[in-house]
Amino acid sequence: MREVAVVGIGCTQFGEHWSASFRDLFVEAGALALNDAGISGEQIDALYVGNMSAGRFIEQEHIGALIADYAGLASNHTPSTRVEAACASGGLAFRQAAIAVASGMEDVVVAAGVEKMTDVGTGASVDTLAGAADREWEGFAGATFPGLYAMIATDYMHRHSLTREQLAQVAVKNHANGARNPIAQFRQEITIDTVLNSSLVADPLRLFDCSPITDGAAAVVVVPLERAREFTDAPVRMLASAQASDTIALHDRRDISTLDATIAAGRRALKLARLEHADIDLVEVHDCFTIAEICAIEDLGFCAKGEAGRLTEEGVTARDGGLPVNVSGGLKACGHPVGATGIKQICEVVQQIRGEAGRRQVDTEIGMTHNVGGTGATVVVHILGAC
Amino acid sequence: MREVAVVGIGCTQFGEHWSASFRDLFVEAGALALNDAGISGEQIDALYVGNMSAGRFIEQEHIGALIADYAGLASNHTPSTRVEAACASGGLAFRQAAIAVASGMEDVVVAAGVEKMTDVGTGASVDTLAGAADREWEGFAGATFPGLYAMIATDYMHRHSLTREQLAQVAVKNHANGARNPIAQFRQEITIDTVLNSSLVADPLRLFDCSPITDGAAAVVVVPLERAREFTDAPVRMLASAQASDTIALHDRRDISTLDATIAAGRRALKLARLEHADIDLVEVHDCFTIAEICAIEDLGFCAKGEAGRLTEEGVTARDGGLPVNVSGGLKACGHPVGATGIKQICEVVQQIRGEAGRRQVDTEIGMTHNVGGTGATVVVHILGAC
Repeated sequence: MREVAVVGIGCTQFGEHWSASFRDLFVEAGALALNDAGISGEQIDALYVGNMSAGRFIEQEHIGALIADYAGLASNHTPSTRVEAACASGGLAFRQAAIAVASGMEDVVVAAGVEKMTDVGTGASVDTLAGAADREWEGFAGATFPGLYAMIATDYMHRHSLTREQLAQVAVKNHANGARNPIAQFRQEITIDTVLNSSLVADPLRLFDCSPITDGAAAVVVVPLERAREFTDAPVRMLASAQASDTIALHDRRDISTLDATIAAGRRALKLARLEHADIDLVEVHDCFTIAEICAIEDLGFCAKGEAGRLTEEGVTARDGGLPVNVSGGLKACGHPVGATGIKQICEVVQQIRGEAGRRQVDTEIGMTHNVGGTGATVVVHILGAC
Repeated sequence: MREVAVVGIGCTQFGEHWSASFRDLFVEAGALALNDAGISGEQIDALYVGNMSAGRFIEQEHIGALIADYAGLASNHTPSTRVEAACASGGLAFRQAAIAVASGMEDVVVAAGVEKMTDVGTGASVDTLAGAADREWEGFAGATFPGLYAMIATDYMHRHSLTREQLAQVAVKNHANGARNPIAQFRQEITIDTVLNSSLVADPLRLFDCSPITDGAAAVVVVPLERAREFTDAPVRMLASAQASDTIALHDRRDISTLDATIAAGRRALKLARLEHADIDLVEVHDCFTIAEICAIEDLGFCAKGEAGRLTEEGVTARDGGLPVNVSGGLKACGHPVGATGIKQICEVVQQIRGEAGRRQVDTEIGMTHNVGGTGATVVVHILGAC
């Protein structure tokens, strides 16, 4: 297997894009990534596109071909494949790109993610997102994603140490980080009171505990490590890719507030990279809800169960703390265009390793990304490092 | 890159499954494939699942994790990834499984395809399937798939030599083959008059020119060639995998009745396998409509443009002809559970190479599969051979 490097990144502004279509968003992110890698479209051997539900959001399937076409690659007949794993679609698109390069089958591969969510109403969005959970046993019974994560939060707070204020601090921290991220949907700082006084969505989760509905796209260029310096002076090496599954329904889990797939993928990634937790300088975790960040920090093994709330309160996970978590602003402040999120996480870690993160910059040699589908039925973890 | 072999196959009955769910269909096909390979679920390193539109057919996304869960693999945390390219989803799932094994990252990988289409009405089906074409420029203007392929047929018949009877003969031949295939949805022979007297769907295509709406699933087990004999005495080797894209919209093509992506993928597959057309003993092509088989035979290079109708009429593409095409019965007689079709094609070629095709058996050492997404925006071609 060949080693793999990232040599180009690109990300649209995340937010409500009323005048840009699904296609426009991808093209913008793709062009930024190609520019960054200093390549043209003809040099691309293959594309992988992460997208959760264009079928329901914009009534369009066949996303791989659509994207290749709108990127001007139809006449080259560039292979293009859509990968879907709900909110982990982007992370898996990156993984497939890495596997294709590692296999020796392809050399220059673009991994992208895109979602256009604002073209349908909130009800339709919520119902579409419920397709990431078990439609027959959860969706049909009325469970929504805020509802499912509220159950996780309720269970967690009943069994472990976590105050409502500590939970709110996750959002406060991620907004503080997002305020320094030009692509973030929300770039204003908030306080614990902002969270506690926001409307109740699904007890105990309030509006500011939830990531928003977002349009956006992100893309990265993946090549064999041995060719990376043809494209950039600052290639970023993939140190590990690990993916794990779990039951689609929350009620079938051993423990509903522990994501076993996060534990499995996290352990495997560290083992593949031959690294320990102390080697990781920062981590982008899947904070679709504040409680999800708490669980992720623990299930990835950065602290024991029940400790992430206190660590958050003490500032350990802040940008200037010992373990910066979601320096990008996370899903909470950047927004969560479902298929794009996993690729945006890769972009953030690459920017940090390159030292190009501006006012968000953290001293980083090695970073981790953690992308979750549904309530944890798919988890994909990547570790990236300086070359 | 490691060489890849198929060591297990499984396919449900294709048809209207009123008492089986999406999940049940996959589990049946998966269990058959595992049984055939003589392995248990714990031995699976990864799953790839081809599915076009569960989001709209059954309001369920996150298909990879769902399938891993219902296959009993959640507690093993087996990675599972959905791949989508409309009607080519199955072929691409097989390709991704092959790439994963070739890369050295995984050893025992299941590639599966599944679609449950009958749970919605015909109107919803037709509209969902239109998501494989260009929603903004074709679907919104009222184009359906029969309509798009009718334009291809009209253009073809205007410019090339093809009679209405020759076109009908494609369906007659495929029904004759399907009558010998126990998994086929339609197992009755028909005549040219059956086709010509059937109701007009989109001029010149009649009901019997069209593949039907179908439920079904298929699965295959892929391993490194060097390990294949651990699993079976009759492994089948993958000789080539090639994928190509084209414009999503038909009107953007150079020539609407020539599928350039078929030409590109077909040529590349032969080149990778270092084979010529005369080496191919049989081919399973994507006959979603009778005209699609005519185009496929020509665009794959088995004859010049305008000759496939005559060859069909003369029986060259029949089971006992010089180039048997769609010995399985094709999409026309087997039915077309979208995501499953590409995997079913692999199953058929493996059965033929093994000499296990019963009354459909053709003397086969090397076979080709040709799986198309939309009107040709994605094409994937595989060549398989005896070991």
